Amino acid sequence: MKNTAVLLITCPDRKGIVAGVGEFLYRHDANILHADQHQDAERGLFLMRVEWDLAGFSLDPSEFPRRFAPLADRFEMRWRLERSDHPLRVALFVSKYDHCLMDLLYRHQTGEIPCEIPLIVANHPDAERWAIFYKIPFHLIPVPAAAKAEAERAQLDLLAAHKIDLVVLARYMQVLSSEFVNKYPQRVINVHHSFLPAFVGAKPYHRAFERGVKLIGATSHYATADLDEGPIIEQDVIRISHRDGLEDLIEKGRDLEKMVLSRAVRWHIDHRILVYDRKTVVFD
Amino acid sequence: MKNTAVLLITCPDRKGIVAGVGEFLYRHDANILHADQHQDAERGLFLMRVEWDLAGFSLDPSEFPRRFAPLADRFEMRWRLERSDHPLRVALFVSKYDHCLMDLLYRHQTGEIPCEIPLIVANHPDAERWAIFYKIPFHLIPVPAAAKAEAERAQLDLLAAHKIDLVVLARYMQVLSSEFVNKYPQRVINVHHSFLPAFVGAKPYHRAFERGVKLIGATSHYATADLDEGPIIEQDVIRISHRDGLEDLIEKGRDLEKMVLSRAVRWHIDHRILVYDRKTVVFD
Amino acid sequence: MKNTAVLLITCPDRKGIVAGVGEFLYRHDANILHADQHQDAERGLFLMRVEWDLAGFSLDPSEFPRRFAPLADRFEMRWRLERSDHPLRVALFVSKYDHCLMDLLYRHQTGEIPCEIPLIVANHPDAERWAIFYKIPFHLIPVPAAAKAEAERAQLDLLAAHKIDLVVLARYMQVLSSEFVNKYPQRVINVHHSFLPAFVGAKPYHRAFERGVKLIGATSHYATADLDEGPIIEQDVIRISHRDGLEDLIEKGRDLEKMVLSRAVRWHIDHRILVYDRKTVVFD
Amino acid sequence: MKNTAVLLITCPDRKGIVAGVGEFLYRHDANILHADQHQDAERGLFLMRVEWDLAGFSLDPSEFPRRFAPLADRFEMRWRLERSDHPLRVALFVSKYDHCLMDLLYRHQTGEIPCEIPLIVANHPDAERWAIFYKIPFHLIPVPAAAKAEAERAQLDLLAAHKIDLVVLARYMQVLSSEFVNKYPQRVINVHHSFLPAFVGAKPYHRAFERGVKLIGATSHYATADLDEGPIIEQDVIRISHRDGLEDLIEKGRDLEKMVLSRAVRWHIDHRILVYDRKTVVFD
Repeated sequence: MKNTAVLLITCPDRKGIVAGVGEFLYRHDANILHADQHQDAERGLFLMRVEWDLAGFSLDPSEFPRRFAPLADRFEMRWRLERSDHPLRVALFVSKYDHCLMDLLYRHQTGEIPCEIPLIVANHPDAERWAIFYKIPFHLIPVPAAAKAEAERAQLDLLAAHKIDLVVLARYMQVLSSEFVNKYPQRVINVHHSFLPAFVGAKPYHRAFERGVKLIGATSHYATADLDEGPIIEQDVIRISHRDGLEDLIEKGRDLEKMVLSRAVRWHIDHRILVYDRKTVVFD
Repeated sequence: MKNTAVLLITCPDRKGIVAGVGEFLYRHDANILHADQHQDAERGLFLMRVEWDLAGFSLDPSEFPRRFAPLADRFEMRWRLERSDHPLRVALFVSKYDHCLMDLLYRHQTGEIPCEIPLIVANHPDAERWAIFYKIPFHLIPVPAAAKAEAERAQLDLLAAHKIDLVVLARYMQVLSSEFVNKYPQRVINVHHSFLPAFVGAKPYHRAFERGVKLIGATSHYATADLDEGPIIEQDVIRISHRDGLEDLIEKGRDLEKMVLSRAVRWHIDHRILVYDRKTVVFD
Repeated sequence: MKNTAVLLITCPDRKGIVAGVGEFLYRHDANILHADQHQDAERGLFLMRVEWDLAGFSLDPSEFPRRFAPLADRFEMRWRLERSDHPLRVALFVSKYDHCLMDLLYRHQTGEIPCEIPLIVANHPDAERWAIFYKIPFHLIPVPAAAKAEAERAQLDLLAAHKIDLVVLARYMQVLSSEFVNKYPQRVINVHHSFLPAFVGAKPYHRAFERGVKLIGATSHYATADLDEGPIIEQDVIRISHRDGLEDLIEKGRDLEKMVLSRAVRWHIDHRILVYDRKTVVFD
Repeated sequence: MKNTAVLLITCPDRKGIVAGVGEFLYRHDANILHADQHQDAERGLFLMRVEWDLAGFSLDPSEFPRRFAPLADRFEMRWRLERSDHPLRVALFVSKYDHCLMDLLYRHQTGEIPCEIPLIVANHPDAERWAIFYKIPFHLIPVPAAAKAEAERAQLDLLAAHKIDLVVLARYMQVLSSEFVNKYPQRVINVHHSFLPAFVGAKPYHRAFERGVKLIGATSHYATADLDEGPIIEQDVIRISHRDGLEDLIEKGRDLEKMVLSRAVRWHIDHRILVYDRKTVVFD
């Protein structure tokens, strides 16, 4: 595995950005591995992702902000630098359904999702077996309706104590408060078991079954204060027929949920996602 | 092409239906080509489709109702008999976008959609070139907002005069009145350019673009008095990305619309669709 | 869960089969839950699957063969009766790659794959952790090139001792001998990591990468003496692009392999598959 | 529609390419609309596509080669410049099956495939009706087995006379000679009605049917002297079942063929495809 840096840029679209960034990296001997960009013509927006090998890079990453500042200022960039030797620290939240959790943990172990997972947070004890199997600390925090704020405080304390960068709601069945979500903007990923915006809210499979749709879907998105309205990261569908009962929908849906959530987590961890308005750009 | 009969049955689920129907057909020397059935356990409903070769069938089809009545009564069946030598008579309605029209006409000519198309009805003159190319009478009936009822009356007169069995709205951009739709229950097929129930109503591609979905869809369904709420026949989706502008969505959507509409028309014409509640059973 | 029986029939296509089977089941008070049939016109073949509730069935299953014999003889049927209260006994074979194994075991636990799994057979020790986690006996049988026959003998002894009905090769990387496969005709399911018949044989992902295909696939099939030539049960594909390196193909392929293998195992266990020539009919 | 230029580059991967190209374009006031690049690490290859608005570009395109030469030399680039105001001139070849032809012509008319189509070449008269409908000159050149070389000479004369840039074999059922293909390297696009490399050669649907595959496919690729071995541009598949007879495969396949061929033509015309070895990079 190479030791790489990823630079993510969002700024007004103007002439000279590519030349400026290219020249800056070249001057410091960056060996570019991937570069991708996107222009949103309607909004006059420029978005870019560049990844380069840190071997041979002549600028100390700690020096990067100061040196990059003039260019960033000139083009009014919002930017950040990520480094593969600083893997993200991810907390997995789970309730009773554990298929997404077990899927993510397996992918983590095979190296598909290169991050650190310092803890699993659950409001239900069943998932602990996976924490034991994969040797990850497990924190059971029940969320009684009457004491939700308290539970969230305990969760937030844990996230702070473990310096968590990303919260993944792996079929965590509690709605997070706006306060919680706003503390981790674009850093909480949720999976909703429908093809959003169809079947926003509770019991989407039941409603899909009643409506008689011919495909069911799942959606991973960043959680926002508006439930199921956050920027969509990934969606997928699978065909169903009149022969599929509600149970079949739930079963087929599990496979979709695993796929769309694990892809979203992976892309986030690879620093491939940029958000603007309510949309995501996923660089591939 | 074989000359075949199709029997479609809906009735309460009870023991003995298969035996009864099987025995009846066997007694009259039916050579069964396809048979499919579906039980909806929740509703206690039995649905069946049987197709047999009319060659060798010892019962004259005109005699069928009288002879089948005792069995039908015993099991409280709603049923109908369709014959491949009585192909459906289909009217195609179109506005300005002609991709679904040209697709259906081509499939009709290749034999994929075996029916008669005695007329094309349009509220816009552009599609006439296809009517000329395929030698099908073309009726231009403008639908000014102020005289919609009149226009529908003219349309209904045409349908009656031509003994139309099925109306296909091939991106016909006018909303039909309840009166119209109720005259052709489960006999008007529409295509909506979204994955219903997402983006019900106007400008679904615009709203999909704004919402930042990662897949767009199209849906064919039977038209009912409630717009976009009729029983869904077929749906399909295609992947999009942040690189796709609104125009790209519209272009990719055209291919979806052609696919889901032509499949729905074909299945209807093959007498494969049974409706109950708001759902369709599509026998394959 | 209902206690059900499944009757599977293959015979020459003739008039009266449906009537005969329907009448037989009705006479013994069968409450039919599902029935599906297929005619292969070209070969004059009739295939059928009927499932009914054993509650209320007036014929003792042990009596079934004797009573059904006259009908079976009359129509020259090959047939078998399966019962949901006699779940299949399945042996999982695995080597080092354990994604299919862990996927099958999870689905087994959730009830998606209702069978008994009395043992896991491996030629490599790594998978034992799953056997321990799921409390399933684990048998490590190394397969050195020089002593393959001996290893197979040990495997076959285990299968016999445990009355195994189905062998699932969950990325088991050894080629089974014809002797082994012929002892379990249509009872060994393998997964091949390509879209057969493309890339038959070794290293299909490498060859897919070199050929520059735009989709990769996976195939589950019954193992036969001819490697990768057995009847195909299920196939699926996923899109790749020039950005995907060999490692990406292998990763994406893992998800395909899990899907196509688990579907095949499930359909086999539900007695939905009939084989004729080199093809499968999968009743849905 | 903007008037744009596209620069396509292939060269050894080295530091400074992006900076160099970016600086060059910036110096001449290019307003970059899209830029995409790909590194093949294994081969040490760099590939790039940049598109910019010619409005405001301060360099006369006719001057481009001379001015760009120093940079191109320094990085050992193979490169070409394409301009949207010089649309490609495309010849469509067809035999009897006309579904791909009619699909391409319709897309051409809607603006999806922005090119010029000065002629249709056919070895069978049936497709002439489309030539008449779309007012495109139609050249009937029969290809008797005994006089194939002569026929190809006539075809090549037409291509030369009409300054054709791209030949699209829209289900043209004659194998082109190496001489022909080599005169138009990476400028002849063919569609093969299978998921290559499965079912190379004749009658792929028949063989797919016999093999009992569960998906059928289609492939568009650049024609080379080795039949069906050219660089793959696009592939797609559709699900089939035991209920689909050979005729159903052929029908479903037609939709696939239209999709994969029209996408390939479009991407070629948009100058999105770069070929190396036997592979294509398709910039999106």
